[in-house]
Amino acid sequence: MAVTITKPSIPKGTRDFSAIEMARRNYIFDTIKGVFKRYGFSQIETPAMENLSTLLGKYGDEGDKLLFKILNSGDFLMSVGAPLNANSDKASLQICEKGLRYDLTVPFARYVVQHQAELTFPYKRFQIQPVWRADRPQKGRYREFYQCDVDIIGSDSLLNEVELIQIVDDVYDALGINVVLKINNRKILAGIAEAIGAAEHMVDITVAIDKLDKIGLDNVNAELQEKGLSTESVEKLQPILKMTGSMEEKIQIMRSILTSEVGQKGLDEVETIFKYVYAIGLKTVKVELDLTLARGLNYYTGAIFEVKALDVEIGSITGGGRYDDLTGIFGLKGMSGVGISFGADRIYDVMTQLNLFPESAMEQTRILFANFGGEDEMYSLKIARDLRAKGIKTEIYPDAAKMKKQMQYADKKQIPFVALCGETERVTGKVTVKNMQTGEQLSLTPDEVVPTISC
Amino acid sequence: MAVTITKPSIPKGTRDFSAIEMARRNYIFDTIKGVFKRYGFSQIETPAMENLSTLLGKYGDEGDKLLFKILNSGDFLMSVGAPLNANSDKASLQICEKGLRYDLTVPFARYVVQHQAELTFPYKRFQIQPVWRADRPQKGRYREFYQCDVDIIGSDSLLNEVELIQIVDDVYDALGINVVLKINNRKILAGIAEAIGAAEHMVDITVAIDKLDKIGLDNVNAELQEKGLSTESVEKLQPILKMTGSMEEKIQIMRSILTSEVGQKGLDEVETIFKYVYAIGLKTVKVELDLTLARGLNYYTGAIFEVKALDVEIGSITGGGRYDDLTGIFGLKGMSGVGISFGADRIYDVMTQLNLFPESAMEQTRILFANFGGEDEMYSLKIARDLRAKGIKTEIYPDAAKMKKQMQYADKKQIPFVALCGETERVTGKVTVKNMQTGEQLSLTPDEVVPTISC
Repeated sequence: MAVTITKPSIPKGTRDFSAIEMARRNYIFDTIKGVFKRYGFSQIETPAMENLSTLLGKYGDEGDKLLFKILNSGDFLMSVGAPLNANSDKASLQICEKGLRYDLTVPFARYVVQHQAELTFPYKRFQIQPVWRADRPQKGRYREFYQCDVDIIGSDSLLNEVELIQIVDDVYDALGINVVLKINNRKILAGIAEAIGAAEHMVDITVAIDKLDKIGLDNVNAELQEKGLSTESVEKLQPILKMTGSMEEKIQIMRSILTSEVGQKGLDEVETIFKYVYAIGLKTVKVELDLTLARGLNYYTGAIFEVKALDVEIGSITGGGRYDDLTGIFGLKGMSGVGISFGADRIYDVMTQLNLFPESAMEQTRILFANFGGEDEMYSLKIARDLRAKGIKTEIYPDAAKMKKQMQYADKKQIPFVALCGETERVTGKVTVKNMQTGEQLSLTPDEVVPTISC
Repeated sequence: MAVTITKPSIPKGTRDFSAIEMARRNYIFDTIKGVFKRYGFSQIETPAMENLSTLLGKYGDEGDKLLFKILNSGDFLMSVGAPLNANSDKASLQICEKGLRYDLTVPFARYVVQHQAELTFPYKRFQIQPVWRADRPQKGRYREFYQCDVDIIGSDSLLNEVELIQIVDDVYDALGINVVLKINNRKILAGIAEAIGAAEHMVDITVAIDKLDKIGLDNVNAELQEKGLSTESVEKLQPILKMTGSMEEKIQIMRSILTSEVGQKGLDEVETIFKYVYAIGLKTVKVELDLTLARGLNYYTGAIFEVKALDVEIGSITGGGRYDDLTGIFGLKGMSGVGISFGADRIYDVMTQLNLFPESAMEQTRILFANFGGEDEMYSLKIARDLRAKGIKTEIYPDAAKMKKQMQYADKKQIPFVALCGETERVTGKVTVKNMQTGEQLSLTPDEVVPTISC
């Protein structure tokens, strides 16, 4: 029988995660999950596949193109009349009815509407699952990546915004990353558009000023004029874009500029959130009002959040905001929600660059029993069993191989201790424990092993 | 703008997991992971999508049909010449190059070959991820489900089999499920086929006797004769199928029946494994030699394992075995491995039926602070902050809503304690804690709250 050998590879834009990468990723996820749970958020999961009818039209035309579609199984083409053009929506619906999850927000909205009768509102959930996008793969951008979302839905209280800020603080304090949390409010952006006499250009303004960091003030102004803003409007915008100072100073100036109801409401909301945050106190996160923060997503209606690492040049590592009608697309109106999303890949990169992963996140085996075969092997197996029962990560080399080979195994796996139990140890009821870093060897009773090798 | 309202649903055969289901599933996964880690296994993850060339031909014709294929993105049909027939392998490769993971074994083999230079052998990994199969959905059978695999590759030592049995013992002991672990060996099955003069029918024999439990002896015999076994062969098989007794008794009888080298080798292996297991000792698992255990998979070459729950009528909840050439399909020969897979869905069902989930697996909020607004709210927020810092799952109701509504929230979420901090408590620096089950109310200092509400 001829066997075809396949040279192994994975689809571009996807990744394997090795043991060390997984241990570090789990360290991040476990830290985040632990914080979410302390605030009373519960984890849910939704299927990787959603009906295309759930996904299509929710992410704009560009998003629709980036959906991974799943071919119907069976004789799907038999039911499709000629001519077939899978680029038309209709045809692709005929050969595909399912697509892979593109984000966690739309499946969450679908979940809330579908299960509304079972849920207790305000409903607090978190979700950590991969999403898939048929984006062009490039450095730091993958076709499969994890999102880590936390949302409260069914309450318009600003305490929810405050709670999310506390969560950001707890997470980054626990991970040891210095961050700044920038806040803005969609209502302030609307107020600005009104105040400069360009209310109908609100989206253009937010899109343009969102790029201020990246492209600079001159380019932002050029873009605004291209979009049809008058010179007068652009001029009126300048003091806002250049504004510096503390949150209190900025708000005071803005109170005099944004005279509309919506603008004042936005300022009230920001002020209230800051008032709470200061009173409760944060551990390490710096909070700033950033009037140029817009974030692309049009469904935000109130607070907008973005978190940046202070010690590494990297984009936003956490972001989110309030949306007043997320579930409306599935027929459930009037459900205000607020949520944030932690970017696991970027957090991973920040922690790697700053060398912030603790040794305990390595999760490697603590002690390897060398294998001398026969009765010595059996003696080792019993002590290994007892160490595991005490929670120690313990291995025994599976063969009585040459000692050099066994030691190399411990070295390569960075196992810090090797137990040597030969005839002498077996007869005297001892364990010789070798510290692989110092080379020191100790003769111990089995009970002395745990305190000796524990971190 | 006309908005289309989509009635929300999910693809058939897929599931949403609610908070309580997730908490219970995580309890199972965390227990299993904890055991795996204590034996020195490390977690890896592979992408949901694999190249179709990796997947096709690995699961038989039936398996190929059950793969979920992913449509290439972009103008894929432009590059396909007419006539298009997506049912032919060639055409489907043209419009699809990727498929969803069908199991964890083939991606693991691919991983080992692709990353062989970075791995330390014997290589011990575990993997807990969903897999997808376009099976007809039915009760207990899903199109998306998690597998939970643990394997050692690159060592033919029987200590690895012993370690997997210890892992099964530790897992089910920790979960509180009484199980029997049945062992057999592919070499014994080969020896049986030889001994009854039907060596060329080995696969037919294993397929048939594997069904003994389900269809009974008469039907097994009928199937064997249908497959072309002589009456004499079937007759010779009867004492083996009907054999009872202890492992030692069975082996003794089999020694005289299986005279071929391969048969004796299989008996040696089983005997060695039992010898180790008895010497080390197991906590709760019963181990049995089951000469009719075959398991469908043809790639097993040595030990075969299957675990069944004793107190619930359900199929196998864990299974696996040794395979001598798993990575050969990707060009890496001579890598013997052994592994087992825990069936999370069935374990979940067993634990639900036997009511084995501990209360701590519920993961719900421990205490809810009622919200009285204003200064009382701020007082509550600070105490809530301190409780969270001590690891207590704490919520504060986000609005100063009517007390009835707030209490209903606690009731529905089964939160065991509600903290009431009104003016009296704020002025005296106390917290009134209500036990929601007994109705008892205690006036406590903030420091007394943790010991009072801890499990």
